[in-house]
Amino acid sequence: MEDLHWKTGISKVEPNKILLRGYRLDELMGRISYGEAVYLTLTGEWPQQNEGRMIEAILVSVIDHGATPPSSLAARTIASTGAELNAAVAGGILAISHYHGGAIEECMIVLHDAVNYQRQKATSVEEAAAWVVESYRRARKRISGFGHRLHTQDPRTARLFELAAQWGIAGEFVVMARAIETTLKETLEKELPINVDGAIAAVLCEMGFEPALADAFFMMARVPGLVAHIYEERTRYKPMRRIHPSDIEYDGPTERSRDHEREASRVDP
Amino acid sequence: MEDLHWKTGISKVEPNKILLRGYRLDELMGRISYGEAVYLTLTGEWPQQNEGRMIEAILVSVIDHGATPPSSLAARTIASTGAELNAAVAGGILAISHYHGGAIEECMIVLHDAVNYQRQKATSVEEAAAWVVESYRRARKRISGFGHRLHTQDPRTARLFELAAQWGIAGEFVVMARAIETTLKETLEKELPINVDGAIAAVLCEMGFEPALADAFFMMARVPGLVAHIYEERTRYKPMRRIHPSDIEYDGPTERSRDHEREASRVDP
Amino acid sequence: MEDLHWKTGISKVEPNKILLRGYRLDELMGRISYGEAVYLTLTGEWPQQNEGRMIEAILVSVIDHGATPPSSLAARTIASTGAELNAAVAGGILAISHYHGGAIEECMIVLHDAVNYQRQKATSVEEAAAWVVESYRRARKRISGFGHRLHTQDPRTARLFELAAQWGIAGEFVVMARAIETTLKETLEKELPINVDGAIAAVLCEMGFEPALADAFFMMARVPGLVAHIYEERTRYKPMRRIHPSDIEYDGPTERSRDHEREASRVDP
Amino acid sequence: MEDLHWKTGISKVEPNKILLRGYRLDELMGRISYGEAVYLTLTGEWPQQNEGRMIEAILVSVIDHGATPPSSLAARTIASTGAELNAAVAGGILAISHYHGGAIEECMIVLHDAVNYQRQKATSVEEAAAWVVESYRRARKRISGFGHRLHTQDPRTARLFELAAQWGIAGEFVVMARAIETTLKETLEKELPINVDGAIAAVLCEMGFEPALADAFFMMARVPGLVAHIYEERTRYKPMRRIHPSDIEYDGPTERSRDHEREASRVDP
Repeated sequence: MEDLHWKTGISKVEPNKILLRGYRLDELMGRISYGEAVYLTLTGEWPQQNEGRMIEAILVSVIDHGATPPSSLAARTIASTGAELNAAVAGGILAISHYHGGAIEECMIVLHDAVNYQRQKATSVEEAAAWVVESYRRARKRISGFGHRLHTQDPRTARLFELAAQWGIAGEFVVMARAIETTLKETLEKELPINVDGAIAAVLCEMGFEPALADAFFMMARVPGLVAHIYEERTRYKPMRRIHPSDIEYDGPTERSRDHEREASRVDP
Repeated sequence: MEDLHWKTGISKVEPNKILLRGYRLDELMGRISYGEAVYLTLTGEWPQQNEGRMIEAILVSVIDHGATPPSSLAARTIASTGAELNAAVAGGILAISHYHGGAIEECMIVLHDAVNYQRQKATSVEEAAAWVVESYRRARKRISGFGHRLHTQDPRTARLFELAAQWGIAGEFVVMARAIETTLKETLEKELPINVDGAIAAVLCEMGFEPALADAFFMMARVPGLVAHIYEERTRYKPMRRIHPSDIEYDGPTERSRDHEREASRVDP
Repeated sequence: MEDLHWKTGISKVEPNKILLRGYRLDELMGRISYGEAVYLTLTGEWPQQNEGRMIEAILVSVIDHGATPPSSLAARTIASTGAELNAAVAGGILAISHYHGGAIEECMIVLHDAVNYQRQKATSVEEAAAWVVESYRRARKRISGFGHRLHTQDPRTARLFELAAQWGIAGEFVVMARAIETTLKETLEKELPINVDGAIAAVLCEMGFEPALADAFFMMARVPGLVAHIYEERTRYKPMRRIHPSDIEYDGPTERSRDHEREASRVDP
Repeated sequence: MEDLHWKTGISKVEPNKILLRGYRLDELMGRISYGEAVYLTLTGEWPQQNEGRMIEAILVSVIDHGATPPSSLAARTIASTGAELNAAVAGGILAISHYHGGAIEECMIVLHDAVNYQRQKATSVEEAAAWVVESYRRARKRISGFGHRLHTQDPRTARLFELAAQWGIAGEFVVMARAIETTLKETLEKELPINVDGAIAAVLCEMGFEPALADAFFMMARVPGLVAHIYEERTRYKPMRRIHPSDIEYDGPTERSRDHEREASRVDP
């Protein structure tokens, strides 16, 4: 019999004790936020500072984007056939790929290319930004993370950068993203502002995540949204209806603010 | 052309404004935790009190359970073929079903059956617990959420109930779960303590979630763990290796405590 | 180390020899049709008579049904995000469930219920058909496999039954399906003719397949169609387009007949 | 409302008439084999000669390869959790990727590279084979489709090439595959015989299929095998067992021949 013994460094399960990256799960519960637990699970280390809340802000920023994205439509289409929850969620996850969520990973690579160039050539940020825009243009590769079909000033970008600055996370990647935005505007003579994918990319780079993990953040963020769409599809519509991809009207609560409500939830024990 | 106009109450997307259940996403970012965002997304309403942190504690409690569960093995098996992240995560999600994660939903149904009986018949908790155990025994149905192959005293159960009590969430469903545990012990003359699935079930009932959403919590919790397994599989092992389902050794950090490290992360801006 | 040795009766792989259900794969190639190989793989036995060609006729009957079914739309939606073929095909498979393809399994159960009743009670076919229609009506369960939103006389039903008769496969289940069709017409005073799902159900019953395998035939049939849709989506349309679920025009070849072309392909070696 | 009208050339569905690539499905049933229907569905055209039976031979050649391949293990692992058939089959499909099945596509690209070089440079087959081996070596790219961990003389390769010759399909791609095999032997001084993936690749090239469709053939082939594994897992084993990836014993029928049995099935109507 071949020896198939193998090793994992993620978690250890013994009778009545489960360690995640060395920490007891029951000790983590209630003391660590989900965002911190995500950081610990993926990197193996305890967050240094505010990575946990930064991750939560990222997850909230893309938790849902209506019923028109392909992940929502795929999940609803599968749910509509009477499939179980695991099938419908998996279908939504399968639609998170190069053109849907994938811009985060692509933008992280652009930012790394530019920052590496800046470091190695000891150039200014502006020169590095100009170099990366030009080299992508020559290679006929798309610079992802800039511009949006619908949002000309994505409010999520400004907010993510504001939080990243406030929490001491913003650094050279955020600066580089802004420089590329400026270069694109000057070169192409049109506005291609950093979109939410680009902002998430910059912040993930700042926290040291590898581009290969970028899609994972989009998936973690979107699962609650997918579940909400699946649940609404099941409870509000008949099976096998034809699901129009854009003729969709929002009939949820009108715009409301969280200010007074927040107070009530602040009652800490 | 048939009229396919339809409505959704989850989120509204306009140029430069995205509303989730009526709240602007950019206002939510940094102000709402992921757990609170999950509550808002799934129920449509702002958390009343401590539901957000309760949900985060639930997610942390089952974020990973080593490499032996079928979801981890399915994800690793698919990752090992060189498949992309979406395929491997989807494969892990597909393995979250009746016998893996499904106990939460089943236990929620048991608890609702018992609590409904108690209310309708105006019986004591003990009578309702005895009734539900007996009626499931007669129907040859399994009472899920009690007993564990490995953990005789699952530390996550105690911790979840402790937090639920501390945060004002524990109520009749937790009481009923304890009563069923006692009844099972007396009836079967063996220990079948509430396991983490049963504890999660009770707490989800307390927060008003429907059993149909139970699996969703397990899925949300497990995605980071699945990603960690997929990433480790890709970076540490050759493609197409034979993955033994149990001859696995943990070689991560030895048990460590978070106390001193926690201090460092408390530096709020 | 626990003993995990286990057994399978499907195929045996040794150096330079692969046995499928006891037969060498290289001997089967070119001598057995795909339909016969499906029968052998699923049942473990060589087809008795014409089961292989019957299975192929079934597979051809549902190989594609345009771009509107949820399996096609889910596959196209996922393909449109730039996902790989495995992800898009898997998404299509996930949409084959209770309301899409699932009618075959449900109808097989109806037919088994009716035929079992007829045997046990030694009734006439008509009495058994009346009983099953009435008992489903009382239980408020749908009798699947009869009636179609679009096809009032599904030409595939007539053809499947014609082939089943010609090939000696039609028997009591086909008779029972016809009797139920008659009963439904008389009882409900409207036409609910056997649809292609019902016809496939009857023929699968005749060949001794279990209802639990019904969906598998629909999946085997539909994979080529799904691949054609995925390939067309990738090569003909831009990524991330909005895919309307019904405003679709066929622009393939106009109706043509296979008669003269068939001659050319008859040149056997 | 935006105009989302779109077109497809695959099939046309009208009341009581379904056209596949212009042919009525009910006319195809019983007259066309599944292999021919696959050719028609994917290419849009009626097979010229023996493509249908060639495709069926390909599908039979890889219909199953025991329980150890990742597609079988992923499907069984998911089935073992109590998941529905669509989830388990989809999980198996997701494991068909670069290192599992993907060699067919990679080898098709190698063969096209070599044949294109031969044509453009008007070289001998041997020179083109030497060029492609050398250029892949320099680029540190793997030449897929040659050599096998287990099968030193894969009987399926010989049989596929025999059938391709007999049916008038073998041509320059099969010749090139053989020349590459010879070059590899001379260059590397070890045997790297064409494996079944390489043989399928050559034959698919001969029939004019694009490399992008290669995985589809492996998927179509493997679905019956996956279903057999899922069904065996469900009916023979308890849920949630630990599935060893290689300590597996075949206990199906001992080797048997189809000769006498074939006679019985030859009773054509």
